[in-house]
Amino acid sequence: MIKVGIIGATGYAGSELVRLITSHPQAEIHTLTSQSYSGQPYGEVYENYRHTDYMCEEENIEKMAEECDVIFLALPHGVASKKINEDILSKTKIIDLGADFRLQDIETYEKWYTTHYAKDILPEAVYGLCEINRDKIKGRRIVANPGCYTTCSILSLYPLVKEKMVDLSSIIIDAKSGATGAGRGLSLGNHYCELNESVKAYKIANHRHTPEIEEQLSYAAGEDIVLNFTPHLMPMDRGILATCYAKLNKNYTYDDVRAAYEKYYKDEYFIRLTKKGVFPETKWVKGSNFVDIGFTIDERTNRVIVIGAIDNLFKGAAGQAVQNMNILFGLDEKTGIDMVPIFPA
Amino acid sequence: MIKVGIIGATGYAGSELVRLITSHPQAEIHTLTSQSYSGQPYGEVYENYRHTDYMCEEENIEKMAEECDVIFLALPHGVASKKINEDILSKTKIIDLGADFRLQDIETYEKWYTTHYAKDILPEAVYGLCEINRDKIKGRRIVANPGCYTTCSILSLYPLVKEKMVDLSSIIIDAKSGATGAGRGLSLGNHYCELNESVKAYKIANHRHTPEIEEQLSYAAGEDIVLNFTPHLMPMDRGILATCYAKLNKNYTYDDVRAAYEKYYKDEYFIRLTKKGVFPETKWVKGSNFVDIGFTIDERTNRVIVIGAIDNLFKGAAGQAVQNMNILFGLDEKTGIDMVPIFPA
Amino acid sequence: MIKVGIIGATGYAGSELVRLITSHPQAEIHTLTSQSYSGQPYGEVYENYRHTDYMCEEENIEKMAEECDVIFLALPHGVASKKINEDILSKTKIIDLGADFRLQDIETYEKWYTTHYAKDILPEAVYGLCEINRDKIKGRRIVANPGCYTTCSILSLYPLVKEKMVDLSSIIIDAKSGATGAGRGLSLGNHYCELNESVKAYKIANHRHTPEIEEQLSYAAGEDIVLNFTPHLMPMDRGILATCYAKLNKNYTYDDVRAAYEKYYKDEYFIRLTKKGVFPETKWVKGSNFVDIGFTIDERTNRVIVIGAIDNLFKGAAGQAVQNMNILFGLDEKTGIDMVPIFPA
Amino acid sequence: MIKVGIIGATGYAGSELVRLITSHPQAEIHTLTSQSYSGQPYGEVYENYRHTDYMCEEENIEKMAEECDVIFLALPHGVASKKINEDILSKTKIIDLGADFRLQDIETYEKWYTTHYAKDILPEAVYGLCEINRDKIKGRRIVANPGCYTTCSILSLYPLVKEKMVDLSSIIIDAKSGATGAGRGLSLGNHYCELNESVKAYKIANHRHTPEIEEQLSYAAGEDIVLNFTPHLMPMDRGILATCYAKLNKNYTYDDVRAAYEKYYKDEYFIRLTKKGVFPETKWVKGSNFVDIGFTIDERTNRVIVIGAIDNLFKGAAGQAVQNMNILFGLDEKTGIDMVPIFPA
Repeated sequence: MIKVGIIGATGYAGSELVRLITSHPQAEIHTLTSQSYSGQPYGEVYENYRHTDYMCEEENIEKMAEECDVIFLALPHGVASKKINEDILSKTKIIDLGADFRLQDIETYEKWYTTHYAKDILPEAVYGLCEINRDKIKGRRIVANPGCYTTCSILSLYPLVKEKMVDLSSIIIDAKSGATGAGRGLSLGNHYCELNESVKAYKIANHRHTPEIEEQLSYAAGEDIVLNFTPHLMPMDRGILATCYAKLNKNYTYDDVRAAYEKYYKDEYFIRLTKKGVFPETKWVKGSNFVDIGFTIDERTNRVIVIGAIDNLFKGAAGQAVQNMNILFGLDEKTGIDMVPIFPA
Repeated sequence: MIKVGIIGATGYAGSELVRLITSHPQAEIHTLTSQSYSGQPYGEVYENYRHTDYMCEEENIEKMAEECDVIFLALPHGVASKKINEDILSKTKIIDLGADFRLQDIETYEKWYTTHYAKDILPEAVYGLCEINRDKIKGRRIVANPGCYTTCSILSLYPLVKEKMVDLSSIIIDAKSGATGAGRGLSLGNHYCELNESVKAYKIANHRHTPEIEEQLSYAAGEDIVLNFTPHLMPMDRGILATCYAKLNKNYTYDDVRAAYEKYYKDEYFIRLTKKGVFPETKWVKGSNFVDIGFTIDERTNRVIVIGAIDNLFKGAAGQAVQNMNILFGLDEKTGIDMVPIFPA
Repeated sequence: MIKVGIIGATGYAGSELVRLITSHPQAEIHTLTSQSYSGQPYGEVYENYRHTDYMCEEENIEKMAEECDVIFLALPHGVASKKINEDILSKTKIIDLGADFRLQDIETYEKWYTTHYAKDILPEAVYGLCEINRDKIKGRRIVANPGCYTTCSILSLYPLVKEKMVDLSSIIIDAKSGATGAGRGLSLGNHYCELNESVKAYKIANHRHTPEIEEQLSYAAGEDIVLNFTPHLMPMDRGILATCYAKLNKNYTYDDVRAAYEKYYKDEYFIRLTKKGVFPETKWVKGSNFVDIGFTIDERTNRVIVIGAIDNLFKGAAGQAVQNMNILFGLDEKTGIDMVPIFPA
Repeated sequence: MIKVGIIGATGYAGSELVRLITSHPQAEIHTLTSQSYSGQPYGEVYENYRHTDYMCEEENIEKMAEECDVIFLALPHGVASKKINEDILSKTKIIDLGADFRLQDIETYEKWYTTHYAKDILPEAVYGLCEINRDKIKGRRIVANPGCYTTCSILSLYPLVKEKMVDLSSIIIDAKSGATGAGRGLSLGNHYCELNESVKAYKIANHRHTPEIEEQLSYAAGEDIVLNFTPHLMPMDRGILATCYAKLNKNYTYDDVRAAYEKYYKDEYFIRLTKKGVFPETKWVKGSNFVDIGFTIDERTNRVIVIGAIDNLFKGAAGQAVQNMNILFGLDEKTGIDMVPIFPA
């Protein structure tokens, strides 16, 4: 059994990770840490765990590195880069659900986030978008688990960009997320009556997932991409829908574009291309690691519109983190995360 | 008192209209008709009207034309164009909440909808987007009340298009609507558990509000506009948010763009431009006739992103219909529709 | 015009009151105060007021008493009783939306709440349940506006208790409330993802509205009543549904019980008795001052089950407060609060 | 592997069953039938199954009886009793999620439901409330899977009734259910905008789960019980909360009552008694087979208030059905249904 440590286990992503590890056939919870709740039973912080004896402990990453086979970090940005060093990496595997090791371009990181404290480690980190970087992930000591919006956005656009079928300067991503994306921290914006029965855009033109999407798509394209990304907050718990727009470089047909998606995704278990005329909805991926992708071409404007859907806490966070763990430890990638989406829920 | 007839009073838009006329100080309900519920007390069809003695009657538009000062039609497309003729118009005013008289281009109408049965009447119909066409509405006998998505989309983009500040081929409207937009008719897509806790795009690249937006913006631009419009269904009752994208023709500043919006809207009571850095949310316009509009410029891509928000049943249907009635009858435009948005609700 | 001051204008009840006074034909906002937001435009605290020039001021009740015809207090319990004194009452009318003047029994108040600082004033305060105490309210200087749960519960049970048709020891009230009842203050329990898609009971057997219901029903019965009251939190914004159970003293028929309700309520505009076999739902009263009441008799157990529904922010708070103001100032009781419920919303 | 047939696989309970069998380590889907969708891929009826090759077939129970080890029926009442006969039972096991075999009292069944067509089979059917009837279930050929409300209500009250700690004539159950309980069939009451943001009671004093609760609690008490059961519809997908009231026969303390619950439930894995002062909420059991139960005593009225919570589709339907299958086939009862509740969701 893989011994798992989770630092930051009492956020929503952390809690989802605890759930997945609990039912994973080849991994088990060894240590859960929480800054706010250390010393408390986990089942009092999340009462769905009422039947377990999990405890929230104070963080001691050195000790965890000694005892755990893998440590997941689910921390605010800027914290992980202070904790990870060569000594830790020499003893355990790290899967970071935060942003600190996602951007290889330090300058971009420091512009959009804060000072980076592990510049030496950064080059070793691999961007853990499993379907794209599977081979690079194997054997690494540290994986940067992608952001939720980014996972959905990149996978939705990857084949088009990789195959240079679209005008790279024309990409617009209009994304919609459920409220779990904003975490468990209290704020007026997340107060029930303020969020319920309303929709809004936020962090327009300045959301931190923008450079992450751009960096990865730029790798795919082999040239720099700048794009628009607009996140919206939906009155629902889980799910991300990304509606992506791009100008086609030629008058491609549906089948042309389909072929590009099939080329990259036809053997990907967790990517489900919808049939022509059918489009993803977040409810069909809830509680699962699936990424549903569908598209259409508007011949009037020669734009392709791609819709991608994921569960932000699952494929967008904890599920993909476990998928990365499975890759790191040589397990079947589906192990412990092969759930049928739960519906209605 | 203006005697009001409403044909199709038992849909959601019709019901909102009954509400607004009930509290209107210079208008009163004369006749309510309903195909499905004729003969039933209105307060049994909509129990919020439990205290009223309104009855659903069978439709007799000729009789209504004799007795009513104005008739509102809230009917499926293709029905109104069969009912309206010169005789009706010679006796009463018509405000049509449906699509039949919105598109002046017959060919476009028949391509996107169905056969038009009142081609002779069509030229007389005015597109009742009050803030833009106020002067044209006065004195007309028939007003085509705009669609909900279109009201929000056109008003959000009008100054940019009118002032030619944006590349007219670059416009993308990503719109989000509450479920009332889909009406009271039963369908699996509107079943509670199917719609709740999920978000989806629908009628991608083929929603009928597309040509309506295009026609009106083309008038404003003085040239033909083709654009992308993608509607999404949100798990909430009311509200439309339109996120609009367009490429700026020059490196305009925030203030440049602001000046354009001020030029057209600074005296418009029902249009509220948000402050710089503040963006509309549907909750702030719910239960009101307000249109909130805010925007930002992404200097990285030189795109302007405009956010517009309305209550789809109010400004997007019944409220604007009453606003049109007020214009037709020479009343203060705000009469009976000057509500503070209701929040939280 | 009645000059209105509101102390505590930035809570949900306060904000609803501002909305109702804004549209009231014979009253106007004179002063709005807020501890948290003083100095800020009200339209930035509640953006639905974006179009107004209301400002949040620091509280100065003495000055307000000089300048306002009536002051509404929407404050945490224990605060109002420190602010109100003979001097204030000699200059203005007070309508207190809080709990401090609702219980005439000081001992009960201090047991369930805290120390009372205006024991001298208390006897003068009238319990502002308009339909029951209308005549006592006229001419008073201070009105204790009833709680939301209590308004719904008392009105649902009053005829049965007054007519002694039920076993007074058998009363159980199982109440369900939307989240606005818990106010705008942040807490984990009101965090969107924690409240959404779940239901819970809270303050079981110790909610502070219990003694308020008991005191008023005891007055009606002419003897002491002790009962069970269990509040539940619903995943919705507005509305209270009270499901009330009591053992009938005899084998009363539906018509017997109906006669009791008609006796007290048949001329009450804001109380709508539902037809036999029809029961209240919160959606049918939303955004209105109506109280819908329906009941059935279970012959198997000889219990009567009464269902009452109100909008907790309207009839349960701000609407009833305005109704009390109307009574105090000799206006038609419906003035400014005669809205058709808004649906769907 | 246990070969599973499901008749009525396209209802919500059926679909949840398909999900649980899909991930069950010792069972597999053999046949899915659907009256409405036969011939269609299951993944088009429920797109969460997009990645599977399940097909909806026409029902042929005789063939299924030959080929399947167990057949689950998820059918409207009155249908199962026509399908099940000695021949079927001689070839396969039956677990009926409907009502036809739940009531042993034929007269009661026919009064509350319809004619019963398998009176000969009925005595053999066991009421599959696993925690109570485990030993009786073993070896049976037909199990009547309990209703959702009933599972929650009976388990919440069982120890009190069994131990005769409460006045058996005083029981009131006020239950709240999410909308999945009403199924996937279209109706105005389940239309999104009609159900959202509102709460209502329904089938007051005449819901068909009443006699089912009464029969089982009467068995426990050894005498006939008549009680009040009032179901309410909540604006949420899943979950049942039962708030139960009963008069204590003596002045029992919390610990006295606790001892009764511990006596029956302390070794029950799926029943989680909450700590003193903590009460169940539906979110903590969602997506799981757990039954959370908590209670308090109101000394003022000497009533005990018990709160029970389940996931209506899981423990209230499909999960308990699998639990029954596990018992029938001698597997560990938790096999395939030992999920940590999913939260937030």
